[in-house]
Amino acid sequence: MPGRAIIHTMRATILHAPRDIRLEDVPTPELHTDTDAVVRVVASCICGSDLWPYRGINPVPAPRRIGHEFIGIVEQVGSAVSTLRPGDFVIAPFAYSDNTCVHCANGVHPSCENGGFWGFDDRDGHLADACQGELVRVPLADGTLVATPGEPPPEHLPHLLSLSDVFPTGHHAAVSAGVAAGSTVVVVGDGAVGLSAVLAAKRLGAATVVAMSRHADRQSIARSFGADEIIAERGEDGAAAVREILGGIGADHVLECVGTAESMAQALRSARPGGRIGTVGAPNGAELDLPTMFRRNLGVAGGVAPVRHYLPELLRDVWDGTVRPGEVFDQALPLDKVADGYRAMDERKAIKTLLTL
Amino acid sequence: MPGRAIIHTMRATILHAPRDIRLEDVPTPELHTDTDAVVRVVASCICGSDLWPYRGINPVPAPRRIGHEFIGIVEQVGSAVSTLRPGDFVIAPFAYSDNTCVHCANGVHPSCENGGFWGFDDRDGHLADACQGELVRVPLADGTLVATPGEPPPEHLPHLLSLSDVFPTGHHAAVSAGVAAGSTVVVVGDGAVGLSAVLAAKRLGAATVVAMSRHADRQSIARSFGADEIIAERGEDGAAAVREILGGIGADHVLECVGTAESMAQALRSARPGGRIGTVGAPNGAELDLPTMFRRNLGVAGGVAPVRHYLPELLRDVWDGTVRPGEVFDQALPLDKVADGYRAMDERKAIKTLLTL
Repeated sequence: MPGRAIIHTMRATILHAPRDIRLEDVPTPELHTDTDAVVRVVASCICGSDLWPYRGINPVPAPRRIGHEFIGIVEQVGSAVSTLRPGDFVIAPFAYSDNTCVHCANGVHPSCENGGFWGFDDRDGHLADACQGELVRVPLADGTLVATPGEPPPEHLPHLLSLSDVFPTGHHAAVSAGVAAGSTVVVVGDGAVGLSAVLAAKRLGAATVVAMSRHADRQSIARSFGADEIIAERGEDGAAAVREILGGIGADHVLECVGTAESMAQALRSARPGGRIGTVGAPNGAELDLPTMFRRNLGVAGGVAPVRHYLPELLRDVWDGTVRPGEVFDQALPLDKVADGYRAMDERKAIKTLLTL
Repeated sequence: MPGRAIIHTMRATILHAPRDIRLEDVPTPELHTDTDAVVRVVASCICGSDLWPYRGINPVPAPRRIGHEFIGIVEQVGSAVSTLRPGDFVIAPFAYSDNTCVHCANGVHPSCENGGFWGFDDRDGHLADACQGELVRVPLADGTLVATPGEPPPEHLPHLLSLSDVFPTGHHAAVSAGVAAGSTVVVVGDGAVGLSAVLAAKRLGAATVVAMSRHADRQSIARSFGADEIIAERGEDGAAAVREILGGIGADHVLECVGTAESMAQALRSARPGGRIGTVGAPNGAELDLPTMFRRNLGVAGGVAPVRHYLPELLRDVWDGTVRPGEVFDQALPLDKVADGYRAMDERKAIKTLLTL
């Protein structure tokens, strides 16, 4: 057709409506500004938070691109990109950021003055592609992407991919709660984030980590991540079991990795007087009982994890094999089976699904 | 009257009903166990929290003793008391504690396994006298009272009395928020605790302390305590003024010293992303907006201050004149004018009233 440009396409995941998710052809991304990069995705994955719109808990008013975790290889960089070159293997945090503004300098990259989230338009009105697809345009590439020290062997990929969100998010729970050498820790939630929080707490030197879990497969990963004790009970029985293990008083630090009213209540109940709760479960009904917190001198901190802030530190330990956070992936599917992955996670048949390209 | 023992009496303050407060004769306290002391009160004072039952915000189902702050001279000690002798000048925290249980060891004395509050029966069923009176039976005397290095000169008394509650409570706000050298701090609340929090933050090395106050007399004390800036605006205007002063982003640390819904909202609004709120205003309508906290990575900690934990450190600086926290007292009355003191504080004609004996 004369006069009509050829539109290149790639495949990307689109959520059309609750439980209607499809891999479709979309325009291939291009560099828009000199600080952009385009990255070819090597692996992506499905997050527990992707299930919220999938299940219709978050509304889906129009079809939308989805996915916010990926690792890949740089294909193109804008002329102002100085730390990356085509061919570099990179890890992308679940949010992009300039890594230079005052909030990034404070280590709070999700509040970056120029940052944003995958799957939405950037400040210039161009889509920052979501990550369950073949290619992603990355705004602020220098401030967002972290290159690995070299080309990773295939068995490293799940561990590197976990650095995109789930492991740093578990780490953020532990850091926000102040976990340090010798701490006693309870982890509420045995999803991929909760399991990652177990690993993060042990990595920070916690003396005793108690994982609350009722599922054998998840208990097994918690053990392999270093959990010293597993508690299957919940509610007041669960808190009593925590106290029995932890000196009769409860935990110094509780990592809340769910975000529901029940999980937050469990977290407050499981902390000793003066204890600290680190919360990374996006609030989905969770509330804070301030009078109880006040009476017992409990503190709560956390939120959207500053993955970019933690990446250099955590990458070192992943690269040298000190930690193996990718064990949270218990299913791997090719991207064209993405709908099966959502179904498996929705039905709790998979803890976390890795998508290969 | 043969066969009838002589009942010795002392004078103590009794709240009969909202705004009906009287100094009356009550039985003189005696040692009940070998860990008790009896202390003659030299000075007591009225707390903002005493106004809650006085105003009927907290119910007063029956007449009750009141007051939880005092300094005094030890009159008698039980045989097991080892750190105090009759004649010692002592400071009493607003709660008594054993200073040995696991919670005290963790620095959370208000959760002491054997502790309690003045004006209520102890675990043995004996009244621990409230403190707006002539004498107080002190349970767990070794764990509760801290003796001064010597006999204080009269001009030291307000500063020493402030160590019973108000200054350590302001300090607890600052510690709970993580104030350190170089911090930027906003203090919400210009009552005696808020003013004390200004002093505590500066003492901990805060670079910039912004006090939110609309009253000239309180602004003046805030300035003398080291406030660098005063903001009279509240609500979003107040938060905008905070941002204008503090790098366009808000405060690293906010000290919430009121406990109302408005003050907590003001505190959250005044913190920068990643900021920390220390709260010591007993919750009186205050709630925490968890989704906002999560999105902005705000943390909240605090509660009932562990005065006994902080006393040795703070007493040193008061004793050598480094800080003068007693400047929060702007009225001094003899104990028999206690009702006038309540009225003055209720009508906000006094910031904090000291009662002499």
